Amino acid sequence: MARPRHYDHDELRTAIIEAARKLLEEGGPAALTARALAKAVGTTPGTIYNLFSNMNAVLHEVNRRTFTELAQMIDAAPPAAPRDRLLALADGYVDFMLARRVVWRGLFEGPHQTDTFPGWYTSLIDELIDRIAAPIAQLQPRASARLLAEELFLSVHGVVALAAIERLDLVTTQDPHSLARSAVERMLNWIEVDRR
Amino acid sequence: MARPRHYDHDELRTAIIEAARKLLEEGGPAALTARALAKAVGTTPGTIYNLFSNMNAVLHEVNRRTFTELAQMIDAAPPAAPRDRLLALADGYVDFMLARRVVWRGLFEGPHQTDTFPGWYTSLIDELIDRIAAPIAQLQPRASARLLAEELFLSVHGVVALAAIERLDLVTTQDPHSLARSAVERMLNWIEVDRR
Repeated sequence: MARPRHYDHDELRTAIIEAARKLLEEGGPAALTARALAKAVGTTPGTIYNLFSNMNAVLHEVNRRTFTELAQMIDAAPPAAPRDRLLALADGYVDFMLARRVVWRGLFEGPHQTDTFPGWYTSLIDELIDRIAAPIAQLQPRASARLLAEELFLSVHGVVALAAIERLDLVTTQDPHSLARSAVERMLNWIEVDRR
Repeated sequence: MARPRHYDHDELRTAIIEAARKLLEEGGPAALTARALAKAVGTTPGTIYNLFSNMNAVLHEVNRRTFTELAQMIDAAPPAAPRDRLLALADGYVDFMLARRVVWRGLFEGPHQTDTFPGWYTSLIDELIDRIAAPIAQLQPRASARLLAEELFLSVHGVVALAAIERLDLVTTQDPHSLARSAVERMLNWIEVDRR
């Protein structure tokens, strides 16, 4: 057995989150157990439960980083007209999922019904949807850009969710990038017709 | 231990599929193990593996019934103009998922990358998508109705998939029926503009 490392409180918390992400990447959501995590950082499951209320809370912290990376990716995109910005967002979201399939799945898998989400978690999701709403608001100031952004996200999510579990080909031979862009085009078309 | 029942080959296969569906409904995809299944029908895991090549094959048979029920639901709908038919399909798909949440999840969960799907399985999915393509073809004979049907399915799937795991409220306060209908409306609008 590896000699236990000595961490201070914040270091240990950070080490646990990093190890959790690695476990998730290597073995999927099912690999993220307190026992495996304790072993990875050289501590005990009890110590992990001292620092996190449960394993959901660990997954939420892993997802916090995923949300932050998604936001950074969006914010790093060069300025563009609303149409190009929305197409770039759709492409970027598909790229992100393809490059980090398992981390992306961690956003949607794990315990369901019994899970509750902290305020910071829902705020991060809100801020991501707002980044879709911003270019829509430039095109459609009258309508609720936020509602349209939610709908656009969900239509792209359908494509990305099936591609993430490698089952998109059960439904279509179209590739995920074209499908995500088509969803954007339909939304832009909808907004355009509404503006007349 | 319950006295083993005696089945003939086909009866046992049917009993296994029925028990598998019940296990799925009661405990989700994770509950569907060879051991639990053998116990439920009073046989051994070895017998199950004589009848099914693996547990994926059992889940595929459970899903066959789900696909058949979806097709029956669609075919039972009264005749309607294409627009109303597509809206009814979207409503029906949301209703089906809400009524049979875990069975619906069985279509998309379970083993991923290593899974292969038999020909009859992909044919059943094809036939479901064709049922969406039929009313689209009435509206848009020039375009590829099938491609648009795939895109419409995927945009509704994004809504239904998040609602199935009770996470739609992380993204939106809109309800799944309105969201699914909005996806249909955007597709109809797209087809309408294209026809001009």
